[in-house]
Amino acid sequence: MSAPNPHGLTPLRDALRKFAADRDWDQFHSPKNLASALSVEAAELLERFQWLTEDQSRRLPPEELRKVREEMADVLNYLVRLADKLDVNLLDAARDKIALNEQKYPVEKARGSVKKYTEL
Amino acid sequence: MSAPNPHGLTPLRDALRKFAADRDWDQFHSPKNLASALSVEAAELLERFQWLTEDQSRRLPPEELRKVREEMADVLNYLVRLADKLDVNLLDAARDKIALNEQKYPVEKARGSVKKYTEL
Amino acid sequence: MSAPNPHGLTPLRDALRKFAADRDWDQFHSPKNLASALSVEAAELLERFQWLTEDQSRRLPPEELRKVREEMADVLNYLVRLADKLDVNLLDAARDKIALNEQKYPVEKARGSVKKYTEL
Amino acid sequence: MSAPNPHGLTPLRDALRKFAADRDWDQFHSPKNLASALSVEAAELLERFQWLTEDQSRRLPPEELRKVREEMADVLNYLVRLADKLDVNLLDAARDKIALNEQKYPVEKARGSVKKYTEL
Repeated sequence: MSAPNPHGLTPLRDALRKFAADRDWDQFHSPKNLASALSVEAAELLERFQWLTEDQSRRLPPEELRKVREEMADVLNYLVRLADKLDVNLLDAARDKIALNEQKYPVEKARGSVKKYTEL
Repeated sequence: MSAPNPHGLTPLRDALRKFAADRDWDQFHSPKNLASALSVEAAELLERFQWLTEDQSRRLPPEELRKVREEMADVLNYLVRLADKLDVNLLDAARDKIALNEQKYPVEKARGSVKKYTEL
Repeated sequence: MSAPNPHGLTPLRDALRKFAADRDWDQFHSPKNLASALSVEAAELLERFQWLTEDQSRRLPPEELRKVREEMADVLNYLVRLADKLDVNLLDAARDKIALNEQKYPVEKARGSVKKYTEL
Repeated sequence: MSAPNPHGLTPLRDALRKFAADRDWDQFHSPKNLASALSVEAAELLERFQWLTEDQSRRLPPEELRKVREEMADVLNYLVRLADKLDVNLLDAARDKIALNEQKYPVEKARGSVKKYTEL
C-alpha cells in the first residue's frame, strides 16, 4: 500500500490512520484486537444473510443492500487498518494468493467440483 | 470498482472472476455463501492471534506473518468477490463509512475513551 | 453448573478444568482469549456447511457428520470453559434467554415471518 | 441428548423445539442456517471482549457480565438446536473430543507450551 495512488487502498489507509490518531485509539489497535474486530464485522455481514435462501441473497431490497454495503465497508476498513499495522501490502498478498490457488486447484480437476472446493 | 485503475481493486475483481469462471464455481458463489466464506476466513485470521498477548501480536515472527498475510488475502478476495456479485464499490463504501463514523464518534467526545468505542 | 449431576455440564466443566491444569494452560484462558477461540471453532463448524445447499446440509454423509460433530464438541468445550471462568450457569442462562425471546417474538406475530425473525 | 434428565440438555432441546414449532420457524432451521446463526452469536459474544485487555476481561462489571451471559445463552441455544437437527449427542461428542485432545497434546509435551497449543 505504499504506492501514492488516489484510487488504491493508500488513501483509505491514511484516512483510517488519521481517524484513529484524532481519537487516540491506536492504543486499542493491536493486531490481535483488530483481527477480533474484523471477525466480528464479518459476522455482522453474515447476519444479514443467515435466514435468506441463496436466491434471496442475490436480490436484496435496496434498504437491505445499503446495510450490507455498510458492513462490507467495516470489514474493509479493519482489514486495511490491520494491514497498516503489520506492514502488509494487501493487493500484493491477494495476487499471490490467487497464484497459489491456481496451483492448488488446477482447472481440469476443479471444474464444477464441490469436492475439491474447500476454499476459494 | 468500475474505474480501470491498474492499482485499485478492479484488476483483482477481474482475476477473481476469471478464477471462478475457469472452474465453473460461480454456481457456489451466491452472496449468502460468499458471506459465510468471508466470515470463515476472518476467523482463520483471528486463529493466528488467539493465544498471543497483544504485545506478541505486534511482533510476529516472519513465518507467522507469512501465514497471517495469506489469511488476510483470503479475506480480501472473498470481500472483493462479494462486492462484485452485489455491485458494490468497496472504496466508496469504505469512505462513506468513515464519514459516518466521524459523526458517530466526534473527536472531542471519543478521545481515548473505551466506553464510546464500540466500533471503528 | 454447580449441581452435582452426572448427566449435566458439571462433569464436562471438571474434565476441562483438569485438562487445562495438567498442561498449565490456564495462563492462556482469559475470557477474552476463550471468546476468540469459541468464535474460531464456530467458524470451523460453519466451514463444513459453507458451499452446501440447505438440503445437502440436512443429509450429511457419515464421514462429514463425524467432522461436524467434532467441531460442535469444540464449540461446547470452549463455551463451558468460558462459563467456568465467568461463573455463569449455562443452563440457567439458556432458559432465561428463551423466556426473553418468548416476549420479544410473540407467537401470533412471529408465526412464519422472516421479517420479525432476526434471531432465535 | 436422549436421556430424560431434568438437569441435562434434553429439557433445553425440548424447549427450543417448542419455541420454533410455535412460530413455524423450522423452515428456516436448516443445519447450514443454524451453523451461520451460531457463528454470528459467537461473534456477538466476542464483540463484548474485543477492546478489553485480558485482565479487564477477567473482571467484567455486572451489567457487562449480564450481556455476556445472554450472548453465551444464544450460542448454547443454537448449538443445542443444531445438535437436535443432526441427531448429535453433545455431551458424548464433548467427552470424545477431550479424549482425542488428550492424545493430541500429551501432558509432558504440552505443559505450558504455546507452540503446541493451537487448540483446546
